[in-house]
Amino acid sequence: MFPMQGRLILFPVHIGCDDLSHSLPSYNSELLYGCHTFIVEELRTARRFLKHAGYPHSIDDTTFYLLNEHTSQKDIDTYLDAISRGEDVGLLSEAGLPCVADPGRLITAMAQRKNIEIIPLVGPSSLMLALMASGFNGQNFAFNGYLPIDRHDRIVAIKNFEAKVHKEHQTQIFIEAPYRNNQMLATLAETLRPDTQICVAADLTLPTQYIVTKPARHWRTNPPNIHKRNTVFLIGE
Amino acid sequence: MFPMQGRLILFPVHIGCDDLSHSLPSYNSELLYGCHTFIVEELRTARRFLKHAGYPHSIDDTTFYLLNEHTSQKDIDTYLDAISRGEDVGLLSEAGLPCVADPGRLITAMAQRKNIEIIPLVGPSSLMLALMASGFNGQNFAFNGYLPIDRHDRIVAIKNFEAKVHKEHQTQIFIEAPYRNNQMLATLAETLRPDTQICVAADLTLPTQYIVTKPARHWRTNPPNIHKRNTVFLIGE
Repeated sequence: MFPMQGRLILFPVHIGCDDLSHSLPSYNSELLYGCHTFIVEELRTARRFLKHAGYPHSIDDTTFYLLNEHTSQKDIDTYLDAISRGEDVGLLSEAGLPCVADPGRLITAMAQRKNIEIIPLVGPSSLMLALMASGFNGQNFAFNGYLPIDRHDRIVAIKNFEAKVHKEHQTQIFIEAPYRNNQMLATLAETLRPDTQICVAADLTLPTQYIVTKPARHWRTNPPNIHKRNTVFLIGE
Repeated sequence: MFPMQGRLILFPVHIGCDDLSHSLPSYNSELLYGCHTFIVEELRTARRFLKHAGYPHSIDDTTFYLLNEHTSQKDIDTYLDAISRGEDVGLLSEAGLPCVADPGRLITAMAQRKNIEIIPLVGPSSLMLALMASGFNGQNFAFNGYLPIDRHDRIVAIKNFEAKVHKEHQTQIFIEAPYRNNQMLATLAETLRPDTQICVAADLTLPTQYIVTKPARHWRTNPPNIHKRNTVFLIGE
């Protein structure tokens, strides 16, 4: 007889606003409290999130596995072992949805190969919040991650996005390292055609939230200060 | 002096599981209870959602504006008038996130032109839940809506997606009318290369939830029955 298998549960984490009732369904806590093993990107923020979410068990009795660029494949291979012993394992993101713009897919891909049941939970996605409020096409969109750093390559990428917006009606979504946000917006505004629409979505879920869609020509002369503010950029029509 | 302006609030609605604590943050209800005007796709489901969410006001004292393929632009132009009178207006989706794979963008685009503050709220996105659990690349992905109906065009679209997956490492997400799901999976399985990965994500948030990633060759001989089950399809690597 097979022992009952555990599940891999994907736990979103708040972005911006740290009042969890704003961005996480209460059901997530029920499942969180049932996990004693977590795969996390950084130990300190994961512990802080669990405490903040009212995790009722001793952190010292909880197992944490680190998943970041230093983690070896040999270690990763063992991260789901508790599931075959019948325990649920939680995958925590640093912020937002696990496996969307983060390294979590190394774990979900392994779980799929091992035929493990995966339970993705609802939570905040800065990409989706920005898309919803942008006024842009939400029936056809692409998330492109980060743009190339090299100035020439970056401009090629931006012009490629603009072509996809106008020819394929596909909204283009991307992000930037927060300390380069002002420079990114300036490059977008001067590279795109004056009437191409740009949405700047900063500080999502925070009281300072700013989600504004205007043509490139507007942003050339009226740039907001988004230095070091988490920002999603969108080009659309 | 300007009168205080209201806001346009984007309310997600549950998908599948109708226990709202599973998929909506409790904060959404606070804002819902403060709205007396709603833009909705269908009156009956909107009323049912409000009742289910514990909406405390009389439905007869609540204003509903219909937004669907029969709505005239002249009508739409008036839908945000209450905002200039200082009231919040709610935009409800039929299921999932407003403005993602639904007509809500007609309203958000108008709100952006009128410089109205837009508040997008957190809720369930079948696309993001499927992507999270697929094991596929979540740093670069595209949502393509529905595929062409014509068989030849559909096969061209699928081969185009496969090229984007392998050349650009971009996960491809799409949906189908639920009564054509089985046929869609069969077409995918026979059109894609045997080793190209397909994720089938059906009944998201329901007890019957099914999210399985396997190569095309597997699906050729082991198709699940997804007839009339809400399903997200993904191609990835």
